[in-house]
Amino acid sequence: MISFESDYTTGAHPKILQRFVETNMEVLSGYGNDAYCQSAREKIRNACQCPEAEVFFLTGGTQTNAVVISSVLQKYEGVVAAQTGHVSVHEAGAIENTGHKVLEIPQSEGKIDAAFLEQYIEAFYQDENYEHMVFPGMVYISYPTEYGTLYTKTELTKIYEVCKKYHIPLFIDGARLGYGLMSKNGDMTLADIARLCDVFYIGGTKVGALCGEAVVFTKNNTPKHFMTLVKRQGAMLAKGRLIGVQFDTLFTDNLYFDISRHAIEMAERLKEIIKEKGCRIYLESPTNQQFIVLENGKMEALKKKVRFGFWEKFDEGHTIVRFATSWSTSEEELDYLREIL
Amino acid sequence: MISFESDYTTGAHPKILQRFVETNMEVLSGYGNDAYCQSAREKIRNACQCPEAEVFFLTGGTQTNAVVISSVLQKYEGVVAAQTGHVSVHEAGAIENTGHKVLEIPQSEGKIDAAFLEQYIEAFYQDENYEHMVFPGMVYISYPTEYGTLYTKTELTKIYEVCKKYHIPLFIDGARLGYGLMSKNGDMTLADIARLCDVFYIGGTKVGALCGEAVVFTKNNTPKHFMTLVKRQGAMLAKGRLIGVQFDTLFTDNLYFDISRHAIEMAERLKEIIKEKGCRIYLESPTNQQFIVLENGKMEALKKKVRFGFWEKFDEGHTIVRFATSWSTSEEELDYLREIL
Amino acid sequence: MISFESDYTTGAHPKILQRFVETNMEVLSGYGNDAYCQSAREKIRNACQCPEAEVFFLTGGTQTNAVVISSVLQKYEGVVAAQTGHVSVHEAGAIENTGHKVLEIPQSEGKIDAAFLEQYIEAFYQDENYEHMVFPGMVYISYPTEYGTLYTKTELTKIYEVCKKYHIPLFIDGARLGYGLMSKNGDMTLADIARLCDVFYIGGTKVGALCGEAVVFTKNNTPKHFMTLVKRQGAMLAKGRLIGVQFDTLFTDNLYFDISRHAIEMAERLKEIIKEKGCRIYLESPTNQQFIVLENGKMEALKKKVRFGFWEKFDEGHTIVRFATSWSTSEEELDYLREIL
Amino acid sequence: MISFESDYTTGAHPKILQRFVETNMEVLSGYGNDAYCQSAREKIRNACQCPEAEVFFLTGGTQTNAVVISSVLQKYEGVVAAQTGHVSVHEAGAIENTGHKVLEIPQSEGKIDAAFLEQYIEAFYQDENYEHMVFPGMVYISYPTEYGTLYTKTELTKIYEVCKKYHIPLFIDGARLGYGLMSKNGDMTLADIARLCDVFYIGGTKVGALCGEAVVFTKNNTPKHFMTLVKRQGAMLAKGRLIGVQFDTLFTDNLYFDISRHAIEMAERLKEIIKEKGCRIYLESPTNQQFIVLENGKMEALKKKVRFGFWEKFDEGHTIVRFATSWSTSEEELDYLREIL
Repeated sequence: MISFESDYTTGAHPKILQRFVETNMEVLSGYGNDAYCQSAREKIRNACQCPEAEVFFLTGGTQTNAVVISSVLQKYEGVVAAQTGHVSVHEAGAIENTGHKVLEIPQSEGKIDAAFLEQYIEAFYQDENYEHMVFPGMVYISYPTEYGTLYTKTELTKIYEVCKKYHIPLFIDGARLGYGLMSKNGDMTLADIARLCDVFYIGGTKVGALCGEAVVFTKNNTPKHFMTLVKRQGAMLAKGRLIGVQFDTLFTDNLYFDISRHAIEMAERLKEIIKEKGCRIYLESPTNQQFIVLENGKMEALKKKVRFGFWEKFDEGHTIVRFATSWSTSEEELDYLREIL
Repeated sequence: MISFESDYTTGAHPKILQRFVETNMEVLSGYGNDAYCQSAREKIRNACQCPEAEVFFLTGGTQTNAVVISSVLQKYEGVVAAQTGHVSVHEAGAIENTGHKVLEIPQSEGKIDAAFLEQYIEAFYQDENYEHMVFPGMVYISYPTEYGTLYTKTELTKIYEVCKKYHIPLFIDGARLGYGLMSKNGDMTLADIARLCDVFYIGGTKVGALCGEAVVFTKNNTPKHFMTLVKRQGAMLAKGRLIGVQFDTLFTDNLYFDISRHAIEMAERLKEIIKEKGCRIYLESPTNQQFIVLENGKMEALKKKVRFGFWEKFDEGHTIVRFATSWSTSEEELDYLREIL
Repeated sequence: MISFESDYTTGAHPKILQRFVETNMEVLSGYGNDAYCQSAREKIRNACQCPEAEVFFLTGGTQTNAVVISSVLQKYEGVVAAQTGHVSVHEAGAIENTGHKVLEIPQSEGKIDAAFLEQYIEAFYQDENYEHMVFPGMVYISYPTEYGTLYTKTELTKIYEVCKKYHIPLFIDGARLGYGLMSKNGDMTLADIARLCDVFYIGGTKVGALCGEAVVFTKNNTPKHFMTLVKRQGAMLAKGRLIGVQFDTLFTDNLYFDISRHAIEMAERLKEIIKEKGCRIYLESPTNQQFIVLENGKMEALKKKVRFGFWEKFDEGHTIVRFATSWSTSEEELDYLREIL
Repeated sequence: MISFESDYTTGAHPKILQRFVETNMEVLSGYGNDAYCQSAREKIRNACQCPEAEVFFLTGGTQTNAVVISSVLQKYEGVVAAQTGHVSVHEAGAIENTGHKVLEIPQSEGKIDAAFLEQYIEAFYQDENYEHMVFPGMVYISYPTEYGTLYTKTELTKIYEVCKKYHIPLFIDGARLGYGLMSKNGDMTLADIARLCDVFYIGGTKVGALCGEAVVFTKNNTPKHFMTLVKRQGAMLAKGRLIGVQFDTLFTDNLYFDISRHAIEMAERLKEIIKEKGCRIYLESPTNQQFIVLENGKMEALKKKVRFGFWEKFDEGHTIVRFATSWSTSEEELDYLREIL
């Protein structure tokens, strides 16, 4: 059985495992102070063209969102996010668990709109009772979004301008960042991302690592005593090398980008196959997640031969499913899929 | 330079890395539902002689303490712990971050006393204002303790009897559990631990894994929707295999116990060397952490050749330092230490 | 200058102050255990025709919502509420401060719909990833709503049936409960309210008291150690008599209902005056809050002679304003308003 | 039956009730923006000889402690307090409920020691693992303490010097502040208190009000958006006049001080009676709370005629009880007590 269920069903890129083996006996400091964490930080700063960037390693996406958001927000603030944002829906209330509200705003294909955002913030401050309300203290977007879509550089620039106008930091959830950067339809580099926000993270778990996300504060704006805040949330690893080695490897010889490009190429071929087979694309996603409308009978038949994700009911006879590619997706798998679709 | 700084300065036991490599391309479900997590759970249940045990995998010790304690406690309850307990002192307020008080009680060499505990709980319920106070809702102990010491089976049995009498669950922090079980002075098996508490965890990070702790609820008492509580705290891994493979390996062919026994043997030889060299043992620890009183001049000289941990000032001229052994401690390192001490 | 700004701009009904004076020198127990709290509880139980009701006194509305909701919810649960609900918008994140998400759903004139609610809960449990989401653990509605509107008995019955079907407690915020019960358009008694939910509160602050809300658990369902949870949130008064005496007075000789009826009669006359003067009613409210669309020039002129609340912009030339009546609204004030409108 | 059970068993000083009646029909703004709150603030600033003081009104002591402490602390900080401090023991975990640890330190008769405090803070920063620990972010003391004892001006000055040296704000819980200021043994004025800390509160509930505490930030240091933080904790009153009128009355014509002096005079006479009757004073308290050791038989007999508080067991045959005086304690009650003791 082949699988397009998600981008986290196979292990790590082999080069990562190889580096684990090679470095295993080295005596290293704990808690992220080791040489591999340092080296990975330096490589990420370079890749971001942001020498002043401060880089921290955390383990998973929900954890990273909760740690970053709660560390940046003042107690009277909440985080503005799309109603479909990962922090709004799929993190079991991890943000609220830190005492902060997710201020949900409308979206289109997973994206929020700069003009609406400005209007929302303006309305807040014009409300005579704004002191009785949760202050917008951060804006959260994901790139790519939960629907695999991408903000253009123009769109992101406008959102960031609104944020700067109101002194509200912008945070980009990059759980699948590589796929956005390598998309044929994307028009941004890692340096653009670093420049156009206050903090973002480079997702490892879903882009070839076993685990790990690299948080990047780009404006000399790391919250005070951030490591203590990380520890307080139970997010600090004793063997910090676990993530340091992985990111050091991912940012050596462009591995992170190569992995991402491969998945995008596989996704493009997947899209061709889907269209060739007359299946309906639910949403034109330019990244590694493809949302397809399948007739229910066909879906049931397919389920016996390939694993994929269920998104939601489309209508009585059809279902929206998700196919995702990853570092390990092979041409053979796509050939087989073409056969059985 | 050799290192006795801690038990987490080298990577994972080689068998673990080997299994990562062997299983890397297998397509596995996420979030801890994969075959390796299932297999590891089964092996742990067997090792605990507790078929009804429910096993969950988390990433690190502080995270595990915060998740378990906050999941078990009612909102009006706190957790009773030694003043020197890891949750009391060295977790940056991770328990309080979940809204719960650590009710600190006196200790001796890191251990709490059953009679005092009973007296403490009795006094609480006899206080006419107990409704204005934090209810004792869980008892936390560590085995081995933060000082490397061990409760005897008799001592643990008495503590657990007090807990059962007052219907207060007992939680054992086993960050270094293996070293306690393999200590020459320990008189408990893993099955004893499982029997004499309500929930405990088997530490991986400090016993040969790259990361990971296995939480074991032994009395059909897993908190409802525990996985959602784990997710809410940002503690769920997408690639659950990361920990599943590690614990599956650790509990195959007694690896966990062999690793622990090796570290204990190295610690026993270390202790001999220390005594032979006329250094003072601060505390008679039967596990892999040894606390030694060094004359400050000697300490400074030693620091150039070997890494170790600083504990606290002993007096003006002396310092208490910690030497720890691990799976990777070698006889050569000990020979070299004997030379330079 | 007269005022229709809100229902909390004058002090308490004079009978309440009189009772403060009369009972002032009596030696009473603290923390809500005094004879007046007991008597008030008994009178409320009778008024609710619910002998098993358990009654607690808190100080204000936001506090009551936060204490009740956080005491009832499990840690993995959130509270479902209208997007316009007081807990959603105007409590500065007090619910999230307790670690729980407000699960906002669509509304119409402040009311949620039973059919939508059922669909929402169904969709939650049908989502294959529901364990990664916040469980619907309580439903919150307000009666009257934030727009002064009322659920009919049929509507409330349907909502409660959905709640019971899914074992989700229903909580009614009755900050202005009296005005709903005495509305000409309302079709429910206090006994109906008590029967058709699991917990509700009878608002005092906005219905003639200086402060105070009476929480009523109607189904033998008070959360365990509720008083400790109240204390933990800083909501317990040493001189519990402060609220006991007020509610004892409000529920003697129907004062609570008389106050409410008076405000409703004044609101009905206010509505007539508004219509008579050709002003546009924004929303047909059957309770003590009236929402009116005023031409901006007229609004500015009026502001010099009468105080009222600003709700939101209607269009470029008009604003929605709120006029509220209360126990102290007099016919003279209405006569004067007719003159100047 | 007479009562010395506590200082909150009778209502408010009659002048307060009189002012409620006189001001009842005035139309006033809500949420603490009314003329009485403003006037009370001004009078308190004058009484403190601190024109820059910022004054806020809250309802009760535990609420005030939780709101002030959580508003001042950064997320990585905790509050240092005596092990016997009200926040440590008798607030049901209200501080931990805000996510912050109470860092308990030793005390003597309820007081902490400046030298120990300095040593404690020094030790924190010298610990190589201090980033894994809760930072001392505030120091909390009570004046008078929970045992009725008082810091001298010299002692308080030393504590405040330590605080300033380490940039840690000092917070004084003045739930019974008046009794400390009017004590024959006290050597501080309200202006001294204001000068020698960063924030304190003037207790109303236990000094003649029905409820209410006045928080005073004395160093231009009110936390940003404090009112929103107050609201978020459910501590904001719609009818702010409830507390404004009370403090305006208490700080008119020295009423607050007269009430306190009266209670102190009654306490002094009480002490004489106790000594005259050969009872043992447990602790030499210079304020309105007296701790007495009673033989158990005598205590049981006395309980039938007078109410008092139970503190703790002294030995098998004796109990420590608490007698408290207040604004309403009369000479007749003392005469009667002398008779029956």
